[in-house]
Amino acid sequence: MRTTVDVPDDPMLASVWAAAEYRVIGDGVFYPDLVRMRDSIRSWDGWLTAWSSLADEYEELAREAETAGNVVTAGEHYWQASLSVHFGQFLWFHRPAEKADAQRRKVELYRKAAPHLQPPAERLEIECDGLRMPAFLRTPPPGGTVSPCVVLIGGLDSTKEESRHFEDSCLARGVATLVFDGPGQGESYAQRALVPDFERYVSAVVDVLQTRPEIDPERIGVLGRSLGGYYAARSAAHEPRLKACAIFGALANIEHLDEIPPQTQLGFEFVTALEDREQARARAKAYINLGDLPSEIRQPLFVLHGALDIIVPVAQAQELYEMAPSEDKRLWIIPDGIHCAHNRFHRVRRPMADWLASRLGASPPSSPRA
Amino acid sequence: MRTTVDVPDDPMLASVWAAAEYRVIGDGVFYPDLVRMRDSIRSWDGWLTAWSSLADEYEELAREAETAGNVVTAGEHYWQASLSVHFGQFLWFHRPAEKADAQRRKVELYRKAAPHLQPPAERLEIECDGLRMPAFLRTPPPGGTVSPCVVLIGGLDSTKEESRHFEDSCLARGVATLVFDGPGQGESYAQRALVPDFERYVSAVVDVLQTRPEIDPERIGVLGRSLGGYYAARSAAHEPRLKACAIFGALANIEHLDEIPPQTQLGFEFVTALEDREQARARAKAYINLGDLPSEIRQPLFVLHGALDIIVPVAQAQELYEMAPSEDKRLWIIPDGIHCAHNRFHRVRRPMADWLASRLGASPPSSPRA
Repeated sequence: MRTTVDVPDDPMLASVWAAAEYRVIGDGVFYPDLVRMRDSIRSWDGWLTAWSSLADEYEELAREAETAGNVVTAGEHYWQASLSVHFGQFLWFHRPAEKADAQRRKVELYRKAAPHLQPPAERLEIECDGLRMPAFLRTPPPGGTVSPCVVLIGGLDSTKEESRHFEDSCLARGVATLVFDGPGQGESYAQRALVPDFERYVSAVVDVLQTRPEIDPERIGVLGRSLGGYYAARSAAHEPRLKACAIFGALANIEHLDEIPPQTQLGFEFVTALEDREQARARAKAYINLGDLPSEIRQPLFVLHGALDIIVPVAQAQELYEMAPSEDKRLWIIPDGIHCAHNRFHRVRRPMADWLASRLGASPPSSPRA
Repeated sequence: MRTTVDVPDDPMLASVWAAAEYRVIGDGVFYPDLVRMRDSIRSWDGWLTAWSSLADEYEELAREAETAGNVVTAGEHYWQASLSVHFGQFLWFHRPAEKADAQRRKVELYRKAAPHLQPPAERLEIECDGLRMPAFLRTPPPGGTVSPCVVLIGGLDSTKEESRHFEDSCLARGVATLVFDGPGQGESYAQRALVPDFERYVSAVVDVLQTRPEIDPERIGVLGRSLGGYYAARSAAHEPRLKACAIFGALANIEHLDEIPPQTQLGFEFVTALEDREQARARAKAYINLGDLPSEIRQPLFVLHGALDIIVPVAQAQELYEMAPSEDKRLWIIPDGIHCAHNRFHRVRRPMADWLASRLGASPPSSPRA
């Protein structure tokens, strides 16, 4: 049987959905909400409004739950609201004031969720070169022992609020998680845009983690996604205190900027905070380039990449992997995987968390009665 | 823009998907797997095979994870395999031998998952009238204190392996969970089909729970879904040791058997284990009827129902609610909800777990460092 359906005739919207569909689900949007967003958003112009309305609903439900003393639900719903508005501002670079408002709202909603998450997320501020970077630390229950920790770095349009599901996977395997907004990211963006030496900010994070009694200072790793993978590779090359490095959607340089989807191109301009578009593009290309740095990566290395990635050519991941002198390294190319293998999140993220747990010597927190 | 898509021209398959789409997601199937099942199953005839293949993949991944010592992933994947084959046999009443095989496989896969779930599921056997009912108990971490417990009862074609996500919601709120296969259900079906007095089997479960040191014998509740809601209502009416009763998709009787979807009609015949179809239908109608029993329900009562339910008319939920003399009772009709409000699982299940936790005096297990 053949049937006809109405599909919005908006190439930009189609392009955003191609990037977002599996990512939003993999990061925690509920399927019925995805269906609703799909059905109700008729043009790219309506994207932010629709997701913000969804956030409104979850925020209201969260408030009601909080008032009733249902703190677990309050935390879940505030987080769901934060995630909804996060995806509302996703790729919304063309209206920076609206994006900034949504970004602020996301932060505020996540802050309300943080103490109620299981385990809770503790807000820290980590300073580097005068930039006070907001961060969240979560440690696996039950306490009383020190845990290894992984520093999670989001990509071009990600922030510390987006990775909660993957954090949960790490925590379930006994690995604490640290997320933060570095230069060019989330709350830090307004103070400091893209820098050529993100690794220094990661080292500042490691400094702080090494002072925490619940974290084993000798078992700290890093994981990065897309542009965050670029930062993770830089950091691993410079920072021997990072004992494992996992990367998915591995970006080595953005010399091919003209060839990627237009809204993602805007993102690379946006992250520089330069007004002149040509200057912005030149800076992105100059600042985002690993060059020979992978030859300094000696830690255990895990590189995951989708063969169908239209943002980062798979050759970049292969080259990064080949160059790294790590004795313990793994390259995992997903034949039908899109950028970051988001469409295969249900098959690739657990093994990635397992790899981190194994390289950082973690074991799952056991139930006392287990 | 209007576009043309291929949709399988199979009314039975369409009917099954209408019942299953949101249920499979709400109970834990991954979205990419749903998309794949939707795209690959071209007729109702191919349903079980497709889901079984999916289970094969997860089983293989689980084995690999187990061999590598990645026990969390092993547990997740075995459970995913079990859930996949569960939905493969869902509504597969017309080929009982295949259904029985799939049922056995589901049980075996879940048993492998059970010790690795977080918290783990402990297998028990609970006897009632010579029937040894398999059951799984999960208790919230961290231990050391007694917890309230909720007995979860699945519906017509549910078994103890299907409710893990809702169990997790209860556990996160400090409520232990007990699931079991009673008469007509899962492993017990072959020994004992539909009975008119399911409440006696629930009382046997309560007997056992009251002997468990980690369970507070005075804080045991019951939750039932669809036909399980009917059993829960019966049990609450007969068993004062049940201190709270929550029902979703509340079934009071099946006098309207001729009017429900054909495959669900087959299910009500199947559960009787009678070969003669007319006898089976008469027995289902005779054995499944609350009559005046709701007037004996005095516990706190929560009734949730979808206004668009095509299996259980919403009037049944309303009548049940009205008849119950409980001083603390709530009726929640979801205007756009289908059977059990499965299409609104993301909005209704958390409040249902909150209600149970509150009526059973539970509080969420806190992280020692929180």
